[in-house]
Amino acid sequence: MSRGTVYGLGVGPGDPELITLKALRRLQAARAVAFPVQRGESVARAIVAAYLREDQDQIAIDAPMTGGDSAQPGYDAAAATIAGYLDRGEDVAVLCEGDPLFYGSFIYLLGRLAGKHQVEVVPGVTSLTACAAALPLPLVGRDERLAVMPAILPNDRLREGFVFGDAVAIVKVGRHFARLAALIQELGLTDRAHYVERASHAVQRVLPLAEVDPATATYFAIILVFKEASPWR
Amino acid sequence: MSRGTVYGLGVGPGDPELITLKALRRLQAARAVAFPVQRGESVARAIVAAYLREDQDQIAIDAPMTGGDSAQPGYDAAAATIAGYLDRGEDVAVLCEGDPLFYGSFIYLLGRLAGKHQVEVVPGVTSLTACAAALPLPLVGRDERLAVMPAILPNDRLREGFVFGDAVAIVKVGRHFARLAALIQELGLTDRAHYVERASHAVQRVLPLAEVDPATATYFAIILVFKEASPWR
Repeated sequence: MSRGTVYGLGVGPGDPELITLKALRRLQAARAVAFPVQRGESVARAIVAAYLREDQDQIAIDAPMTGGDSAQPGYDAAAATIAGYLDRGEDVAVLCEGDPLFYGSFIYLLGRLAGKHQVEVVPGVTSLTACAAALPLPLVGRDERLAVMPAILPNDRLREGFVFGDAVAIVKVGRHFARLAALIQELGLTDRAHYVERASHAVQRVLPLAEVDPATATYFAIILVFKEASPWR
Repeated sequence: MSRGTVYGLGVGPGDPELITLKALRRLQAARAVAFPVQRGESVARAIVAAYLREDQDQIAIDAPMTGGDSAQPGYDAAAATIAGYLDRGEDVAVLCEGDPLFYGSFIYLLGRLAGKHQVEVVPGVTSLTACAAALPLPLVGRDERLAVMPAILPNDRLREGFVFGDAVAIVKVGRHFARLAALIQELGLTDRAHYVERASHAVQRVLPLAEVDPATATYFAIILVFKEASPWR
């Protein structure tokens, strides 16, 4: 074990005020700050831009959104850079949009660093509950079941979520929007479906699913479907 | 619409530092602070005890854990008290363990106050992601599906979650522990099941499911099951 600690910090869904006191403290105490970069931009870094210290090293993690094998060299390189700090006894904060362990790229770093280095994860507010807050509607209550699925799944896998869940969340909508909207229409649930884009960001959009122009749908959106009317919804 | 605003504030899973900057600001600016009380105690109030101002009114919401119809008079009374503040143009903060809209009692107040009063929900860190952080293991990644279910459900309903989810979370374990452990054993998943109690609290317990003494299981625990080994888990 090296003496430094790598912190996986959930920085929340977008509003810089939705970071926790703990993540902010760990962030500001770290020697270096690492963050995933996609097409030259880092959403996680943008969220905490006002909190960064000028004397902190910044480590850009090359993390293409396509994921899969093409992303692995970027994580290998980032893990090696981070390990260098840890071996010198310096702490590194890895910024994670939302929560580090909820559909985040931090899981790739965790797999590379755990066991060999001290790892601490600070959980964060996910875009999932931020979407419910934006509506605001209960996500799940009492004896309800929640299904969460990424939009990239084929329709037969998504359909199973609508069988299982009283509330169904489809994350990372993006280019899958038209297919998802058609599936939800086929299931007769369009009027119980909500589209929330960039929840808690200044540019947040909240719309009934039927009112979304498919051309405007983004990756940073969630579709929430409540299968049946509840006493409270 | 009355002039005051009622804030549903997620105060996080237990560690007082896991409150967000926004929830803390809303909490400290409110004229009155309301919180659910069960058997004379309020977990949500205990989490933020150090942040309360002495000049803030405190409203105890009688919210028996049994839920159901027996809980409704308590919410009726609390909603009426809160509405009194709002009608006078004063803000009320309702403290919610974890996130207000994720299996929380705030949903009952939301149903009573929405439409008639201004409501703002500040999402919080849930015990769900705090449990993953405690392990630490990825909750869900890539194309995985997540099933979340309350322990009170009968086995046939719970089984469907294990069919659907790559990751399965059973919340509010408590007196259902022995039945849940037997079900997971029957499914052959015991060695992939984790028990996390009071995640992020000072008294947090993290154990493989097989090592839990059923007599010690509490309501404030989650069982997390990862159905198959993933490259990162």
